[in-house]
Amino acid sequence: MSPPRLEQCRERDRQDPLASWRQLFDLPAGPVYLDGNSLGPPPRAARKLVDRVLSEQWAGRLIGGWNEGWLDQPRRLGDSIGRLIGAGPGQVIVADSTSVNLYKLLAAALGAAGDRRAIVTEAGNFPTDVYVAGALAAELRQVPRQGLAAALDPSVAVLLLTHVDYRTGHMHDMAALTRAAHDAGALVLWDLAHSAGAVPVDLDGCGADLAVGCGYKFLNGGPGAPAFLYVASALQASGVLASPIPGWFGHARPFDFAPRYEPAPGVERFQAGTPPIVALAALQAALEVWDRADLAAVRGKSLAMSDLLIEMLDDLGADVVTPREHPARGSQVSLRHPRAGRLARALIERGVIVDHRPPDIVRFGITPLYSGFEDLGRAAQALGDLLRSRDYEAERFGVAVQVP
Amino acid sequence: MSPPRLEQCRERDRQDPLASWRQLFDLPAGPVYLDGNSLGPPPRAARKLVDRVLSEQWAGRLIGGWNEGWLDQPRRLGDSIGRLIGAGPGQVIVADSTSVNLYKLLAAALGAAGDRRAIVTEAGNFPTDVYVAGALAAELRQVPRQGLAAALDPSVAVLLLTHVDYRTGHMHDMAALTRAAHDAGALVLWDLAHSAGAVPVDLDGCGADLAVGCGYKFLNGGPGAPAFLYVASALQASGVLASPIPGWFGHARPFDFAPRYEPAPGVERFQAGTPPIVALAALQAALEVWDRADLAAVRGKSLAMSDLLIEMLDDLGADVVTPREHPARGSQVSLRHPRAGRLARALIERGVIVDHRPPDIVRFGITPLYSGFEDLGRAAQALGDLLRSRDYEAERFGVAVQVP
Repeated sequence: MSPPRLEQCRERDRQDPLASWRQLFDLPAGPVYLDGNSLGPPPRAARKLVDRVLSEQWAGRLIGGWNEGWLDQPRRLGDSIGRLIGAGPGQVIVADSTSVNLYKLLAAALGAAGDRRAIVTEAGNFPTDVYVAGALAAELRQVPRQGLAAALDPSVAVLLLTHVDYRTGHMHDMAALTRAAHDAGALVLWDLAHSAGAVPVDLDGCGADLAVGCGYKFLNGGPGAPAFLYVASALQASGVLASPIPGWFGHARPFDFAPRYEPAPGVERFQAGTPPIVALAALQAALEVWDRADLAAVRGKSLAMSDLLIEMLDDLGADVVTPREHPARGSQVSLRHPRAGRLARALIERGVIVDHRPPDIVRFGITPLYSGFEDLGRAAQALGDLLRSRDYEAERFGVAVQVP
Repeated sequence: MSPPRLEQCRERDRQDPLASWRQLFDLPAGPVYLDGNSLGPPPRAARKLVDRVLSEQWAGRLIGGWNEGWLDQPRRLGDSIGRLIGAGPGQVIVADSTSVNLYKLLAAALGAAGDRRAIVTEAGNFPTDVYVAGALAAELRQVPRQGLAAALDPSVAVLLLTHVDYRTGHMHDMAALTRAAHDAGALVLWDLAHSAGAVPVDLDGCGADLAVGCGYKFLNGGPGAPAFLYVASALQASGVLASPIPGWFGHARPFDFAPRYEPAPGVERFQAGTPPIVALAALQAALEVWDRADLAAVRGKSLAMSDLLIEMLDDLGADVVTPREHPARGSQVSLRHPRAGRLARALIERGVIVDHRPPDIVRFGITPLYSGFEDLGRAAQALGDLLRSRDYEAERFGVAVQVP
């Protein structure tokens, strides 16, 4: 990285209308953080909001807190997330973890599918999605991307896809694949872990059926934040979907303590246990930032940033695996390298926080709300130094670190 | 309540060696809080600890937090809970909600039970337990308490019992019923929602197989706190139990992102998604209080308190349904009244926070760490006034309020 190039990056930051949003986040001053696709940083408002829930609500109202807003939190925050993923009100609820939500929706979809017992998913989909689908479906077909549409025959109950690939950052054409699933008589379930808060999503517009997603990546809801799930209004109205986990918060009238289970009419039937109020407070602080964000501006900056990073990685001779075409690109840039784990750890030691996905991927997360062009310039500079010096061959970088 | 009697209560508080523990909790000054069996109050240390997790860990270390303690939290806090329920280290893990944990363990037990396909539970068990068991078992037998042992025939896979009844506060003989289940070749699963932090529990000593429980009641972990589950070492070693929800955190090596699911060898296999770090911080603050508590002293005070409350309720002519015998009593006192909902709401209006369980139960939770004898005296006084005046017949008390 030549100094003039870093200066060009700084100039772009000066012209960036989103640059001031970084102040809304609590980020350490030193490092370049390009791992917001693994764990977003705290919004500055989170500490105060969480503390208020602890002091004014939990301590102040005790059990009475349930009658002053807690009960509605999963639905209210779900509607906030809905705006980010093209889902009108009443279709998204915040609950459990992504894994558990995926389990509930997949089981419900299979339960309503009659003789259709297969799930089709993409080969190389995120492991949990594959594990859960494999546990639930009589048959799990893992097919390469290009073969997905062709694999949809009358035995298929659900097409299960992760919208943006966690390794390469490839983004599917949601509209086309949703259509393909419906043409084959299957439902489609989208995993939005790397989409919500990252790329434009239009679930309602695509006519999607089901979706799940994560609260702690691009949404910035905190480590292990509650996740979300989406059930399209039409599917809710059909009444055919039942959660496999009939917990009391999925009941139509939880506080009747009725001996028989009667599912709530709406998406609330996919709640199970008591909503996690303290964790929801952190997520709320994050969503209050998102509530004010211009999603088109975020996407515009994301593409400008990833274009620049790809250009700089190309200059370094790196093997970029992220799609060049904008419609197929998520909000990350990944490179392939035989020493990816060492390279990632050496970058982290130099203050450029990225992550490694086995076997050979280094990921650079692109998070326009709190990252800028200079961050990318510094990352490319550190990577260039490492590739030239091969310092990542040092013994200490051979030891794997466990990070989600 | 005669003034001399209230003075006697105060005298007992002065002699109570646990009286000073109330200072460890953040309780509003005015009301008498006898609903800690629904939602425990915040330990004073919670605000600081949660804030430290947000500022020093999440903001300070970002993704690096996972390598500095977050990953072990579910196990570490599980071991703390283990001390309260007679479970040696490595058998308890904190995860998900009680509903989801119950689902996972029941499904695992049924999956390992071969031809045994029935679940036996007590008629009137907590609704979620009945819903979940009903969803999973080919046959669910709900039998009265006295018929439990007789219902255990060779078709029974699991005896599912809530140790302390949420309505009456009746406590089962865990050792005897565990033996009865084993004699019949069944596993036993104990729901400890109203036991952990409330009564002595000796899971290991009883040879129990499985248990689940709640973080937000007697444990004081916060509204919707993460729950826990227990799998006895012997059952873990047998390797026969598999979680129905194979999420990545239940994998033996989650960060290998391996295409095939391989369950973790220990109780960790019953984790599913990413641990909820912010919520766990509040629970940790609560468990750090419990770590220092003398459980025998807590039980002693609980019985002394419930003895006194029963005596005072008897004097008022109330219909006390909680067992008189200590070994059969949890840490609550309940009365039956045809206008229970109104009575509870009228008590709350007078600053005595209790709850109503349909159709006709008023519950007084007994929580010796932060409640005392004067609290009970004031509760009995308010109840006496209401029963004499019948003020609970006022119209405003006819409107039900939803509270978990």
